[in-house]
Amino acid sequence: MRGHRREMAMKKRIKEILSGYAGESPGVLTNLARMLNHGTLGGTGKMVILPVDQGFEHGPGRSFAVNPPGYNPHYHFDLAVEAGCSAYAAPLGFLEAGAAEHAGEVPLILKLNNRDSLLDEKDPDQAVTGSVKDALRLGCVGVGYTIYPGSAHRLEMYGTLRDIAAEAKGVGLAVIVWSYPRGSGLSKEGETAIDVTAYAAHIAAQAGAHVIKVKLPSAHLAQDAAKKVYEKTQVPIGSLTDRVRHVVQSAFDGRRIVIFSGGAKEEDKVVFDEVRAIRDGGGFGSIIGRNSFQRPRADALEFLGTVMKIYAGKLT
Amino acid sequence: MRGHRREMAMKKRIKEILSGYAGESPGVLTNLARMLNHGTLGGTGKMVILPVDQGFEHGPGRSFAVNPPGYNPHYHFDLAVEAGCSAYAAPLGFLEAGAAEHAGEVPLILKLNNRDSLLDEKDPDQAVTGSVKDALRLGCVGVGYTIYPGSAHRLEMYGTLRDIAAEAKGVGLAVIVWSYPRGSGLSKEGETAIDVTAYAAHIAAQAGAHVIKVKLPSAHLAQDAAKKVYEKTQVPIGSLTDRVRHVVQSAFDGRRIVIFSGGAKEEDKVVFDEVRAIRDGGGFGSIIGRNSFQRPRADALEFLGTVMKIYAGKLT
Amino acid sequence: MRGHRREMAMKKRIKEILSGYAGESPGVLTNLARMLNHGTLGGTGKMVILPVDQGFEHGPGRSFAVNPPGYNPHYHFDLAVEAGCSAYAAPLGFLEAGAAEHAGEVPLILKLNNRDSLLDEKDPDQAVTGSVKDALRLGCVGVGYTIYPGSAHRLEMYGTLRDIAAEAKGVGLAVIVWSYPRGSGLSKEGETAIDVTAYAAHIAAQAGAHVIKVKLPSAHLAQDAAKKVYEKTQVPIGSLTDRVRHVVQSAFDGRRIVIFSGGAKEEDKVVFDEVRAIRDGGGFGSIIGRNSFQRPRADALEFLGTVMKIYAGKLT
Amino acid sequence: MRGHRREMAMKKRIKEILSGYAGESPGVLTNLARMLNHGTLGGTGKMVILPVDQGFEHGPGRSFAVNPPGYNPHYHFDLAVEAGCSAYAAPLGFLEAGAAEHAGEVPLILKLNNRDSLLDEKDPDQAVTGSVKDALRLGCVGVGYTIYPGSAHRLEMYGTLRDIAAEAKGVGLAVIVWSYPRGSGLSKEGETAIDVTAYAAHIAAQAGAHVIKVKLPSAHLAQDAAKKVYEKTQVPIGSLTDRVRHVVQSAFDGRRIVIFSGGAKEEDKVVFDEVRAIRDGGGFGSIIGRNSFQRPRADALEFLGTVMKIYAGKLT
Amino acid sequence: MRGHRREMAMKKRIKEILSGYAGESPGVLTNLARMLNHGTLGGTGKMVILPVDQGFEHGPGRSFAVNPPGYNPHYHFDLAVEAGCSAYAAPLGFLEAGAAEHAGEVPLILKLNNRDSLLDEKDPDQAVTGSVKDALRLGCVGVGYTIYPGSAHRLEMYGTLRDIAAEAKGVGLAVIVWSYPRGSGLSKEGETAIDVTAYAAHIAAQAGAHVIKVKLPSAHLAQDAAKKVYEKTQVPIGSLTDRVRHVVQSAFDGRRIVIFSGGAKEEDKVVFDEVRAIRDGGGFGSIIGRNSFQRPRADALEFLGTVMKIYAGKLT
Repeated sequence: MRGHRREMAMKKRIKEILSGYAGESPGVLTNLARMLNHGTLGGTGKMVILPVDQGFEHGPGRSFAVNPPGYNPHYHFDLAVEAGCSAYAAPLGFLEAGAAEHAGEVPLILKLNNRDSLLDEKDPDQAVTGSVKDALRLGCVGVGYTIYPGSAHRLEMYGTLRDIAAEAKGVGLAVIVWSYPRGSGLSKEGETAIDVTAYAAHIAAQAGAHVIKVKLPSAHLAQDAAKKVYEKTQVPIGSLTDRVRHVVQSAFDGRRIVIFSGGAKEEDKVVFDEVRAIRDGGGFGSIIGRNSFQRPRADALEFLGTVMKIYAGKLT
Repeated sequence: MRGHRREMAMKKRIKEILSGYAGESPGVLTNLARMLNHGTLGGTGKMVILPVDQGFEHGPGRSFAVNPPGYNPHYHFDLAVEAGCSAYAAPLGFLEAGAAEHAGEVPLILKLNNRDSLLDEKDPDQAVTGSVKDALRLGCVGVGYTIYPGSAHRLEMYGTLRDIAAEAKGVGLAVIVWSYPRGSGLSKEGETAIDVTAYAAHIAAQAGAHVIKVKLPSAHLAQDAAKKVYEKTQVPIGSLTDRVRHVVQSAFDGRRIVIFSGGAKEEDKVVFDEVRAIRDGGGFGSIIGRNSFQRPRADALEFLGTVMKIYAGKLT
Repeated sequence: MRGHRREMAMKKRIKEILSGYAGESPGVLTNLARMLNHGTLGGTGKMVILPVDQGFEHGPGRSFAVNPPGYNPHYHFDLAVEAGCSAYAAPLGFLEAGAAEHAGEVPLILKLNNRDSLLDEKDPDQAVTGSVKDALRLGCVGVGYTIYPGSAHRLEMYGTLRDIAAEAKGVGLAVIVWSYPRGSGLSKEGETAIDVTAYAAHIAAQAGAHVIKVKLPSAHLAQDAAKKVYEKTQVPIGSLTDRVRHVVQSAFDGRRIVIFSGGAKEEDKVVFDEVRAIRDGGGFGSIIGRNSFQRPRADALEFLGTVMKIYAGKLT
Repeated sequence: MRGHRREMAMKKRIKEILSGYAGESPGVLTNLARMLNHGTLGGTGKMVILPVDQGFEHGPGRSFAVNPPGYNPHYHFDLAVEAGCSAYAAPLGFLEAGAAEHAGEVPLILKLNNRDSLLDEKDPDQAVTGSVKDALRLGCVGVGYTIYPGSAHRLEMYGTLRDIAAEAKGVGLAVIVWSYPRGSGLSKEGETAIDVTAYAAHIAAQAGAHVIKVKLPSAHLAQDAAKKVYEKTQVPIGSLTDRVRHVVQSAFDGRRIVIFSGGAKEEDKVVFDEVRAIRDGGGFGSIIGRNSFQRPRADALEFLGTVMKIYAGKLT
Repeated sequence: MRGHRREMAMKKRIKEILSGYAGESPGVLTNLARMLNHGTLGGTGKMVILPVDQGFEHGPGRSFAVNPPGYNPHYHFDLAVEAGCSAYAAPLGFLEAGAAEHAGEVPLILKLNNRDSLLDEKDPDQAVTGSVKDALRLGCVGVGYTIYPGSAHRLEMYGTLRDIAAEAKGVGLAVIVWSYPRGSGLSKEGETAIDVTAYAAHIAAQAGAHVIKVKLPSAHLAQDAAKKVYEKTQVPIGSLTDRVRHVVQSAFDGRRIVIFSGGAKEEDKVVFDEVRAIRDGGGFGSIIGRNSFQRPRADALEFLGTVMKIYAGKLT
């Protein structure tokens, strides 16, 4: 009986989240539901996604030498499945190298654009290395796309996002946007400032994203014009929980799924506290790459297990 | 521990079935896996699909008056979900009328062609009433298509199937073919003759079907040339189990999923015995329409529950 | 030394055959060469192709009950490989069910049109059940297509052949035409008459076929107008060797590859004599289906081995 | 018996390599198998490819004056055939000038982009000088494409690669990527640094390459962030064998074919030692241009023969 | 008798030249043959083409004031016909203004890209001013296209050439490439250096040109890396005949038609000596614009007549 009541509550929460996307096709809703209903957090309205694009972004040695099984594309499928992640996101090659063998085991997101770090540019851009057609061919639930608000290339990136999102929605795929402020318009500190992070989330939502990934924001206010308003209107940004709440609010007042990156390797305790803040601030979950696959598998499973318990409310 | 071993066995069986489709894209494999892993029979390698195209085929009164909640498209989604069916198949309208509200609850199959019974033709044909694009828009795992081997229209139907199957495979959807011998080339008795049923399953497989639906065959042999061979080589067709085995063999020796229709309303005991024969003959499951939705919901759930228990080996 | 000289002679013969296709693209020449250079007869200028479309044409029971391993699509790939056939030809489903596992083992021909025998029509036609794109996807060297000269549907069949052949040549695939006189324009005896067979081969060549398959002709002359000329000009048609020579002559005087079907099951000695006649009359080889896969594998390998030895001149 | 066992082992090794491409179409698998099964190393799992694009890259005099028969396009077809190479790769013109005459003699790779050295640019780019359609027309097994990680043009090159790769895979062709770090992001020494080479191989794999060509890496570590990780995790890079192993590991842990360029003309002994290192480090073979066609034919055949013997394990 | 033997020798020479294009379609071969068999030099294997794009390149006054009838487009058709030229090449407008009246009188080449001299750029480019469709509409045998190896725009030019060449070949037209080294990568002297000219011819051949036009090369060696090789291998470049031979060798060892421009107005004797060098070095002919149409018609006819006599071997 209690199990049934819990199930009903969960179903209701998923429907509530999906109601934010009422104008989308049943195909898009289905693929969002596939992520929301999958894995350990299935039905809770929270998500933990495993992204593995660091090989492309930072090079294979920097990404996998610390835990060499990660060189093998199958490792990450297995990790996502066993940890009960909501989805696994990766560039074309990593999905091509395992999607057949792992068909149906975990929702897949094809990360459509990528960038390497062999050339350092002040205004970064990304290469489009996959397509919506690839995502269908590989059985994905959605496509991922990065934008760099603050870069001189941002307007072109928004435009390409629009084309890709339109094509994806046309075939029922979900659109997940990595919104990373970066480039000549921003100081290093500004990249994670609360006003900038909220702005980045809002841009992604306006550009048609279904799911938005941003970094956890600091209490810094980077833009003078924004700073004035934030201070005048006393937007609460003192605690991380406050700031998460503000970012979620900025992405259509909770009507868009906003998830936060796990950031670089830190002490686990710090990460767990961040997860609590995301949960308590109304965030929808985490996307945790390096912190997962750069440690031995058993450790990773325990680590992700704890994160999910916090999200599920089984750990305060 | 035993649970884990059972899970491993199930995963292995699904992989075994999918290995018969090695040349297909990961997308197709994913959508086949979605059906094979869903619902009560998820992971067993058996499937029970709920099809509701009788409204189109026989008219609403003939179909739903006996159990009026069935006039409501949501009723069938709910029935498929609650009964734990592997998938729900219906024409365009029925899916359009409920796919958003039931997004992600049960794998959907869009039945792409249909026929009404307002005109009786010796050589029947069907109208194409949906498209692969519709299936993507509605979040389906596959498309359904009927062919009538034996009808003067069959060659054109095979050709259209090819076009539809190619498009579906290109976007990662599964292709489910209803292969129903019918038309001027066949007597009434011939429509379900074992040689003709095996032939119908084989044609669907050669035409590129992933999942094949046929009627349960009788022991009759309709074609003289076939009769000679069956008798000379002593193909075992005495029991229904034998005949199911022969049909499965005829569909690439078990490398294509073959499911059998539940037929017209009969005594439940008869149906359960048929299900036992399908199970014991190596069939992959049932597709049961009228026998499900033309009785009160509680009855239907119990009836389908028993069918699934037989397939799962929980009832001998 | 002798080995090298033999190899040079073989290379020369292949180049000689290919010179008949000088206007075709290197892609088409490459795929013709792939067949001519593969298997036991590779390099001899002779070919033996295994076709398995009987399941579609006659039904699975009539085709495979006599040798049940043939229900399994892999059986035929293996048979073609082990026997050293020049190519394996089958409809879409049979190739889809094994092309991945047998990639690169034997040249494949996708039979693009097919017909079942559930409806007997005076003027037969075929359904298009595969496409040139399918052939590329499956790694084929060519596409097969049947025409029925003599049927009321022939003109449309010629037209469809043209479209398919144009598309195939545009992507470098070889075009193999099954030219089977049949239909209301012909008596049963006329279907294999020498004048009709020669005519059928010529039509295929004029329609752009690279490889032409016909039945072995009888000495019958079916058309009055032709009979007059054949008798007046004393075309030698007395022996089967004579008739093969005339058919090859009719297909552009030896500049198109003409192969002959192995016909229905007969005494092996009869078949071997036919093969000698094909060889001595300048035919390019055989396409042998039922006579191969309707006997136990070991028998089939011995049978095909003998056929190939005759073609290779190792048996007189 | 031993011959048969060896053949079985070889067939198994090829299947093992192809299993890394499980999601690809049978057409792609077929064309990969055509290279892996061709020539002297056919069936061993090792490949030696002859590439002749130096005429375009460095000019005809610099490329062919030292061995003038190389001005003739037929020379290179003949060399590849006689040496038993796994494939021959060249730009459009060289293939157009010989593919008809040499149809079916050796697997061909059309190098789709090229660059001349009449203008020296800090950030190099290439011109697209051929198409996937050209590759089909010429009977090729695959297309080749160069990327320059480290160049300011790299992102656009990755994007074009994606489009070309998608088109190639759609018609069953293999995708071979030359991944050459170069440009303003890298020092001369950095171009062949082990971290950069491993990164270049990984990028190609992520971009969807089936076969990856890189230069043999030095023990230099060029990127500070990588250097730190390599040293901390003690990635073994001391010997060339170690470094080859690391590059292969970086390309999906051996699930992508990685071959190494033969580099500039050196003493043969040096090259043979490099080949031993490639073999012992788990590399899949070599792509040797100038070292082959810039010496007299007899010398070249002996040189390539020795290389192949080392790969085949017939020379330690 | 002697006439017949001469005719046979000529036919053989044309076939020999066409054999270098064995992979091309009969349509392309036909259009090449039309030029090779037309006019005074028809059948000799030599060609003299009249190009009149100077109006576009240098302006009408600079081009035609010295011989005002040249302002009239018909003048050049007439000149080409009367002089017995192998073809007449011009931009869109000049052909549109006379192709109807002179239909069938002389093979036409539509020059597809052009450039004016109203703006002097270090790195020149050209505008595409005509299309393959225009060439068909105007009854042309081929299309002309200019590339500037050495210009910063060269890579894009090569890419456009590829697209145009593919389209032209697809409809059976010949592709004539003007390969003119020019741009920031080259000194003025380097533009006609023997190494650079040979390189330019090779690039055009690799890019798929059927006929290549270059300038007569000087004995200068412009690229250091090339200079080293030319000197070490003692490539003979002392005489103009030597240099022509080297350029022809660089364009696939005589398997591509290479013709040389007549250059700026010089003393006739100088031009005749150059023609002798082209002939003796194995060049295929000349393309002579200004030297023809910038003198009175009678003079031009005599001048071209002498050039053709030299090519035909009637003048030593």
